[in-house]
Amino acid sequence: MAGCGVRWQYILGAALSGALLLTAGILLGHYAIYKEPQTPEWLHSLSRDLDPALLEDFMNQVEAARIGQNLKDLSSKPHMATTKGDEELVQLILKAWRDPQTGLDSAMEGQYEVFLSFPDPEKPNSVAVVMENGSQAFISQETEKNLTADQADRDVVKPYAAYAPPGNPKGKLVYANQGKMSDYEYLVQQGIDLNGTIAITRYGGAGRADKAINGAKFGVVGVVVYTDPGDINDGKASATETYPYSWYLPPSGVERGSYNSHFGDLLTPYYPAKGFTYRIPEDQITGIPPIPTQPIGFEDAKTLICNLAGNPVAEAAWQGALGCVYHLGPGFRQDGLFPNSSEVQVNVHNYRRINTSSNVMGLIRGSVEPDRYVLYGNHRDSWVHGAIDPSSGTAVMLEISRVLGKMVKEGKLRAGCVCVFYFLWWGVKHGNSRGRSVSGQKDASPTYCLPPPFSLGSLGAGSDYASFIHYLGITSMDIAYTYDRSKTSARIYPAYHTAFDTFHYAETFIDPGFTSHQTVARTAGNVLIRLADALILPLNVSDYGETLQQMYSVAREAFQADLTHHNISLDPLWAAINRFQAAAAGLNQRIANLREEANPSPLDVRMVNDQLMLLERAFLNPRAFPEKYYYSHVIMASRSSSLATFPGLADAYDNAKEDGLWGEVHKQLTIVIQVIENAASILEPVAE
Amino acid sequence: MAGCGVRWQYILGAALSGALLLTAGILLGHYAIYKEPQTPEWLHSLSRDLDPALLEDFMNQVEAARIGQNLKDLSSKPHMATTKGDEELVQLILKAWRDPQTGLDSAMEGQYEVFLSFPDPEKPNSVAVVMENGSQAFISQETEKNLTADQADRDVVKPYAAYAPPGNPKGKLVYANQGKMSDYEYLVQQGIDLNGTIAITRYGGAGRADKAINGAKFGVVGVVVYTDPGDINDGKASATETYPYSWYLPPSGVERGSYNSHFGDLLTPYYPAKGFTYRIPEDQITGIPPIPTQPIGFEDAKTLICNLAGNPVAEAAWQGALGCVYHLGPGFRQDGLFPNSSEVQVNVHNYRRINTSSNVMGLIRGSVEPDRYVLYGNHRDSWVHGAIDPSSGTAVMLEISRVLGKMVKEGKLRAGCVCVFYFLWWGVKHGNSRGRSVSGQKDASPTYCLPPPFSLGSLGAGSDYASFIHYLGITSMDIAYTYDRSKTSARIYPAYHTAFDTFHYAETFIDPGFTSHQTVARTAGNVLIRLADALILPLNVSDYGETLQQMYSVAREAFQADLTHHNISLDPLWAAINRFQAAAAGLNQRIANLREEANPSPLDVRMVNDQLMLLERAFLNPRAFPEKYYYSHVIMASRSSSLATFPGLADAYDNAKEDGLWGEVHKQLTIVIQVIENAASILEPVAE
Repeated sequence: MAGCGVRWQYILGAALSGALLLTAGILLGHYAIYKEPQTPEWLHSLSRDLDPALLEDFMNQVEAARIGQNLKDLSSKPHMATTKGDEELVQLILKAWRDPQTGLDSAMEGQYEVFLSFPDPEKPNSVAVVMENGSQAFISQETEKNLTADQADRDVVKPYAAYAPPGNPKGKLVYANQGKMSDYEYLVQQGIDLNGTIAITRYGGAGRADKAINGAKFGVVGVVVYTDPGDINDGKASATETYPYSWYLPPSGVERGSYNSHFGDLLTPYYPAKGFTYRIPEDQITGIPPIPTQPIGFEDAKTLICNLAGNPVAEAAWQGALGCVYHLGPGFRQDGLFPNSSEVQVNVHNYRRINTSSNVMGLIRGSVEPDRYVLYGNHRDSWVHGAIDPSSGTAVMLEISRVLGKMVKEGKLRAGCVCVFYFLWWGVKHGNSRGRSVSGQKDASPTYCLPPPFSLGSLGAGSDYASFIHYLGITSMDIAYTYDRSKTSARIYPAYHTAFDTFHYAETFIDPGFTSHQTVARTAGNVLIRLADALILPLNVSDYGETLQQMYSVAREAFQADLTHHNISLDPLWAAINRFQAAAAGLNQRIANLREEANPSPLDVRMVNDQLMLLERAFLNPRAFPEKYYYSHVIMASRSSSLATFPGLADAYDNAKEDGLWGEVHKQLTIVIQVIENAASILEPVAE
Repeated sequence: MAGCGVRWQYILGAALSGALLLTAGILLGHYAIYKEPQTPEWLHSLSRDLDPALLEDFMNQVEAARIGQNLKDLSSKPHMATTKGDEELVQLILKAWRDPQTGLDSAMEGQYEVFLSFPDPEKPNSVAVVMENGSQAFISQETEKNLTADQADRDVVKPYAAYAPPGNPKGKLVYANQGKMSDYEYLVQQGIDLNGTIAITRYGGAGRADKAINGAKFGVVGVVVYTDPGDINDGKASATETYPYSWYLPPSGVERGSYNSHFGDLLTPYYPAKGFTYRIPEDQITGIPPIPTQPIGFEDAKTLICNLAGNPVAEAAWQGALGCVYHLGPGFRQDGLFPNSSEVQVNVHNYRRINTSSNVMGLIRGSVEPDRYVLYGNHRDSWVHGAIDPSSGTAVMLEISRVLGKMVKEGKLRAGCVCVFYFLWWGVKHGNSRGRSVSGQKDASPTYCLPPPFSLGSLGAGSDYASFIHYLGITSMDIAYTYDRSKTSARIYPAYHTAFDTFHYAETFIDPGFTSHQTVARTAGNVLIRLADALILPLNVSDYGETLQQMYSVAREAFQADLTHHNISLDPLWAAINRFQAAAAGLNQRIANLREEANPSPLDVRMVNDQLMLLERAFLNPRAFPEKYYYSHVIMASRSSSLATFPGLADAYDNAKEDGLWGEVHKQLTIVIQVIENAASILEPVAE
């Protein structure tokens, strides 16, 4: 589905992550112009609102079968970034957008030079058990088993941890749960000396790179990562219970991924990865594993973990579904598969290089305000075939652009209309998400549904919109059709980033008939057309006020006692939120009044649309989080704290509890107050 | 005159520096509306351009005598920031802007809590010569001599170096020229041990605070600063050649000032100095003297410098007009006024505190696009009476606001018009500065004239516009009527920041009859009305392209050989500048086409105005200069290099020549290229 979380593309930043950005202007009206003597041509087009018939027409033309065919074309071959398969998709997309009948007004490429990491095709990475005499007692599988022929494609990249450094460290194995700081601390508390050990960790709980970054702080020399069937397969672990017999991950499946905490090209933080751009030395890169790291399948992980020594056993929360009791190590148990003196060796032969790649952009020009843009995007590159991640989103986008392109070419949409959205903020929920064709359960795919109403949350750093919302403050939205979490505990769809994320998998287990895809296309197109064509932008700023108030309540509940003790008052924050809410209500009222005017002045409409459009920018402070690349959005930045409140404040509070630096808490509180005051002033009417 | 360079206000930041910000919307039309059946009311007001008769009317109504009276009222008493005299001016200005006949639409105060430095009124600061036996052989004058009664006002603050720390260090005296790094280095090269010395330095060449910051690096323990008559008086140094007999500085005159390298409140960098704002600990403040520092008059400086020991004598460039040959020290010569063993002691009793103060803001509401603002501002606080700095600018502003306010009240200006400009970029030169009433020599004041044509340069960090242009990227302009530099070598007008900058001084020697003030008011009002009322903003973006090209030429000439040697190419910079120039020419052409349309669409006009208005923002990069508070404007930031080229590039180049860090040069070049590419994209037409 559109917007599946992927990490690989973050490192590509502007290069690939927005592979399918469509840009076009906001169209405020699109009908044939009624000529009246004495009045200028543009008069009537300026105050015309969205035409419901246009929406209806769009919805009717979206075809599930075409989306299915798009998906088949897009995922027929592996298309990892900058590989041949990926370059072929550049051409596929350009061809679609340049089609004489259904293409867009224009389509173009924008080239970048991006820093990537690859495994050495000649020397496979591995995780081995090495006995005292130096001989190998076990070696991990090189790649997934061939179950549906797709896995045998010679372009399937063997599993690796992108950006992990090469090396072959060897040591006693320990089980470190999810590789969080607290996990390693727990091992130390158990009396385990982590120096020189190899840690095996399961996916989840911490970022991929963090498992190694954290471990290295404790003396760990190599990290192994696997997907526990308890986290992704509802405990199913046998070959016959998993794909191709169900949507569950087979025992040999390995999640690849970008082991990188930041987004954007690693060598050119804050700047476009162009030929002329200064590149930092590789040793200044942060947020990637400092020690060799390798992912394996749970079949191999079972061999390692189920033979670990150590007493007591790992606590309940650390246990998984490998079919044995997990011990912590260090090393293997006496009565197991391997001699107790055996060690584990992580063999990594990754290399890094700068490759050329392109963004592909297509455009439908706006007819009234062609300098105002609505963007719709998705990344293009996958880890293997990438049927769900990312091609499901691309397949939907191509169908949306086909229908809109056709409508433009046929003259229904006058002089072009905005094509595609992607970036819109959560506030859309009241304004825009109740398009009547978008609703209902979907029974064909038991685990997948679109819960009515939409489930809405804040945007994390989890996908292609990250640089738009977090760095640029562009109002953003992520629409995904996902599975019913009451029916499965899977952390993500099980084939994620493996050689089993194929067209066959998608059409068999995810969306037979592609009707969910069709629903997403209709929803997305609906929002897109409304954003582009509505006289007044369909964004409800009061929702933001509610969110701020919720965040405030959490902060007050958790922090107030300590803050008061350190003479820091939350009252100015509360005052700022009240001001924001009053301003939002006032703007809504002015919008309502404007809607009742028969002939509103286009500049009055423009003024209100600017307030709606620029609100998100007011929450940016590029100096708020100097340690976090790109994160500038004070309300939505990433946070380490588990509390759903202002991230800078929450993290500063946690730190102050440790180090006593309450000044930093006051500073972060100041930053929050200032952006909310700024945001309120954006929404307020001009001074009289 | 408006915009005289002052440093004090920088520390007040948003609190006082923009004391007289007038804000109002861009008025695109202002006539009575012609009603036509079938067309909305707003139709005709949207495409009406500036009315020349309005300008004419404004020009005719500006009265020199009223400006003179304003100046008398404003400078009758000392009004240092947050003192009683300053608070009285808040009321004076509010009263003027709330006048029923000539006031503005509204006027208001905005309170801040600002960090200030004051001398102890009970314990005067001094610079003394102390003999070996501990007795005092000399002590500097406490304040200026009373020459015209103004100096006897009990509210005249005694000379001090604001923000210099208290203390009474003592040591051998050395003469350190202007206190630049190179000056101290030169002294060391002469074999002088600076450890434990007191340095006497003259104003000029380096920032006030830098004289002490630099000296402390060499072991200097106290700094004395004076104004050399060679720098400010064309060498005139006697009582009968100086004020009240001429405009020159009397021997007892002392330039006070803010010894602070940054702008904005020192405790709240990047945040408004409000009650809720986090304040950094005082020991984290940078950019102020780390050692006691005190300014004195040149009469006292002569006693110290003309008795210095040391051979050889100071080199020619270091000599001044005190009437003796300057030696370097250390200490006093054998045959002079003081025993050779005497030392100089700098006695400073300054204290720092947080005071409350207000911005005063007045507003004329725009009638068509009331959310677009033109700002006109000046600071309010002075060091003493401050007739020229800052009151001349305020006197002019009050006359402009009186005339515009009156025109609004009388209904000539419909529904209000923008009041006051201040912030506009240099590009105004072609578009706007040739108002026909603004020209000519002014013979009444032999040293002051407005050279025709305007002398135009880039905006430094030297005045109240600093935070607007450097931090916010708001197109800014500084209009000043200044003296003819072919007739005097004065660094600045001689009474600057002394107790002699009085109304008497201004009316006698600066602008008898206040006709120069009148000319400034007409010029400023002219620009202001054009900015507010023109259908298309009168800004010529091609001027920016010329400046970029000049900067490029300087960079190529000076840096290319070394850059090539380090594999850094200037070609992408040249390509970016070419793109910018083409984009600017294209925009100019589109503007010309738009002007020829009988009824341009208001949204087409809005689009072009946005491009003109937002251009300056494209040059901001808040991460370009992390060490320089607030400086974000990549083209106009301060620089240490003497080369008139891209500041970050020039400084990185100079550093690389010392430390070999050519990567930083490449990074700064990248930053320049990126902002120019961004700026070009702002100007380019939307994609087709």
